[in-house]
Amino acid sequence: MENNFQFAERMATIQPSFIREILKAADNESVISFAGGLPNAEYFPEQALAELASRILTERPQDVLQYGQSEGETELRQHICDQYRQRHRVDVPVENILITNGSQQAFDLIGKVLLDEGDKVIIESPGYLGAIQSLMIYRPQFLPVPIGQNGLNLDAFETALSADPKLVYSVPNFQNPTGFSYNAETREAMANLIRDKSCLIIEDDPYGEIRFEGEAEPSFYHYLPEQTLLLGSFSKIIAPGLRLGWMVAPSPVMQKLIVAKQAADLHTSRLSQHLILAFLKDERFEPHIRRLCKAYEQRCRLMGEKLDELFAGEVLRSHPQGGMFMWLAFAKNIDTMELFREASRLGMVFVPGQPFYTNQGGSHCARLNFSCASPAQIDRGLALLHQAFRTISIISP
Amino acid sequence: MENNFQFAERMATIQPSFIREILKAADNESVISFAGGLPNAEYFPEQALAELASRILTERPQDVLQYGQSEGETELRQHICDQYRQRHRVDVPVENILITNGSQQAFDLIGKVLLDEGDKVIIESPGYLGAIQSLMIYRPQFLPVPIGQNGLNLDAFETALSADPKLVYSVPNFQNPTGFSYNAETREAMANLIRDKSCLIIEDDPYGEIRFEGEAEPSFYHYLPEQTLLLGSFSKIIAPGLRLGWMVAPSPVMQKLIVAKQAADLHTSRLSQHLILAFLKDERFEPHIRRLCKAYEQRCRLMGEKLDELFAGEVLRSHPQGGMFMWLAFAKNIDTMELFREASRLGMVFVPGQPFYTNQGGSHCARLNFSCASPAQIDRGLALLHQAFRTISIISP
Repeated sequence: MENNFQFAERMATIQPSFIREILKAADNESVISFAGGLPNAEYFPEQALAELASRILTERPQDVLQYGQSEGETELRQHICDQYRQRHRVDVPVENILITNGSQQAFDLIGKVLLDEGDKVIIESPGYLGAIQSLMIYRPQFLPVPIGQNGLNLDAFETALSADPKLVYSVPNFQNPTGFSYNAETREAMANLIRDKSCLIIEDDPYGEIRFEGEAEPSFYHYLPEQTLLLGSFSKIIAPGLRLGWMVAPSPVMQKLIVAKQAADLHTSRLSQHLILAFLKDERFEPHIRRLCKAYEQRCRLMGEKLDELFAGEVLRSHPQGGMFMWLAFAKNIDTMELFREASRLGMVFVPGQPFYTNQGGSHCARLNFSCASPAQIDRGLALLHQAFRTISIISP
Repeated sequence: MENNFQFAERMATIQPSFIREILKAADNESVISFAGGLPNAEYFPEQALAELASRILTERPQDVLQYGQSEGETELRQHICDQYRQRHRVDVPVENILITNGSQQAFDLIGKVLLDEGDKVIIESPGYLGAIQSLMIYRPQFLPVPIGQNGLNLDAFETALSADPKLVYSVPNFQNPTGFSYNAETREAMANLIRDKSCLIIEDDPYGEIRFEGEAEPSFYHYLPEQTLLLGSFSKIIAPGLRLGWMVAPSPVMQKLIVAKQAADLHTSRLSQHLILAFLKDERFEPHIRRLCKAYEQRCRLMGEKLDELFAGEVLRSHPQGGMFMWLAFAKNIDTMELFREASRLGMVFVPGQPFYTNQGGSHCARLNFSCASPAQIDRGLALLHQAFRTISIISP
């Protein structure tokens, strides 16, 4: 009986991710890990959250414990809308904001509402696997477009657009896995190419608030409010364990998303919603963000300097202005899967580049996370990486 | 541009539910509502939860705030497994328990993992709309089988099984909308009919712990552990706003469900998980459940007595031994949609029977919720219902 179940066709090609396997391998205190995509737990605002949780449950239990509306709590949506106006000077109507269980749920709802089998989706190459795997359940055809340090390659993007895709997936700020950010010219050019096509752009922005250098560029929403699905998350700036994010969508899409959200889980935890809202409004929030950005900046700078020193001329790297990731490109004859195996034997792990590509590519690349390790671990971890690099360089032709 | 989006075909037939519209109408303090399916907010354990939330966030913030595993927190799954052993004498391996955002998410994950378009699903008629609407997104064909006071009609069930369905959906304890419970004979006969077919039964049990009369009958899991998807929820016994439930599934299905859960939202809020676990282990939990059952019993009894008194001989009703709902069947010439309109004009609402049927049926039936109203509101609400009944009886032929 046991192996006799007929699963849905959509599950046939879905496998647990390689990155997840790496993360399990890294779940060992003696291993120095640059593999994860976790925020640094040292900076969780636990004291404030403990105090606020108790206050909310005492003062307004009915707003937290009873069933709520599928769209999410109105006060939280209003706060998000106020922030867009004040910090980004974009006008997002509160009715167009849906609260989700992190951005991950937004991918699932978008796929459910918009994708039929075989529909085309432009993705960044290399790109964020979490989004790609979530959308993959709806069996689209992915059209990878190369990303460079200023954003998508515009010629390749224009060619891909001519195949009439339904969606474009993009992480324009401090992209995962590269740490690249789209410049204003690329954003505007992409918006002009998409405008008036029956195509929506998913603007996934989990890291936007973790900027430690440079200035924010306009959001796609600024250029194309009627065609942008703008995704935000509190996972990287407050705490991922509470599972809280949101999305902005044009009204006709929002109507369908609400129905899909209701079918998916009725609504997101109201305790998570009210707790995060209370912290966003608390006087401790702004200092928290400044402290977080400063900590990540310090780690990013240290990682970059140390890499430049150890690998001078042997590796190209990205220069992130924020976020959590740095991207390395070695000479073409270095296989980073092999490098990974050697490094993990020595006690450090990272993610090889290849899993971030849906087609071939990235076999000489690597993603390093800088948010989680301590300065001392960055020092030691990169020394081990260099040792592994020398070992496999001698073996490689 | 705005109306030019091509939505996925699966969304074409999905509409916001009629019940949801009624609930919106009932969201008015002057209306006496027996329409909802909400637990009574008077009995939320808010003080205990406030204290426990603060303690958890202070003592073990890392376990609550960082990313967690898709399966759910091991301690919570272990506790659920212990409860099955101690209270229900069934052995559920901890690896076969998945934490979900309420049972609603279980429906979505089951549909995603198991249903291709056109697959057949046996449902109870009348049945729970939340499950049906969630599964509908995966475009199965529903096979309604009549439910009576002892459970599904076995002849009709056997006929429906010969159509080779993939799933059977059942709420064997205090069913929604009828309040009926399956007796042991029906459970065993159904299990025998399903055994060795390539068919799974969804045993949805959100109300099982709210029993105020009679003895629990064996679960389908007891008869068919390899073919049962057993769903549980903390929404009715603790608080729905935290969105917490679980499901038990055979190992090969569990593997796929975990992948689907990861794609859907990575994992359920760890704060909800640890908060509810702490309350389950707290000395206040058992007295809380006793108090809740007693309150619902009182309301159920009052509603039944009052109905028998007002409608003597004019309506048949169910005699729930637990849960939150009572089912009424008027004479065939009473249209409960009409009754609903007249009653709501007078200031009371309930849910007419027809929306609980996917085929025709139930036009002379009604669902009354007894968990939410106060004894005084039950008195007054039923008097208004009777007044509406007399008005439309005079008009009806």
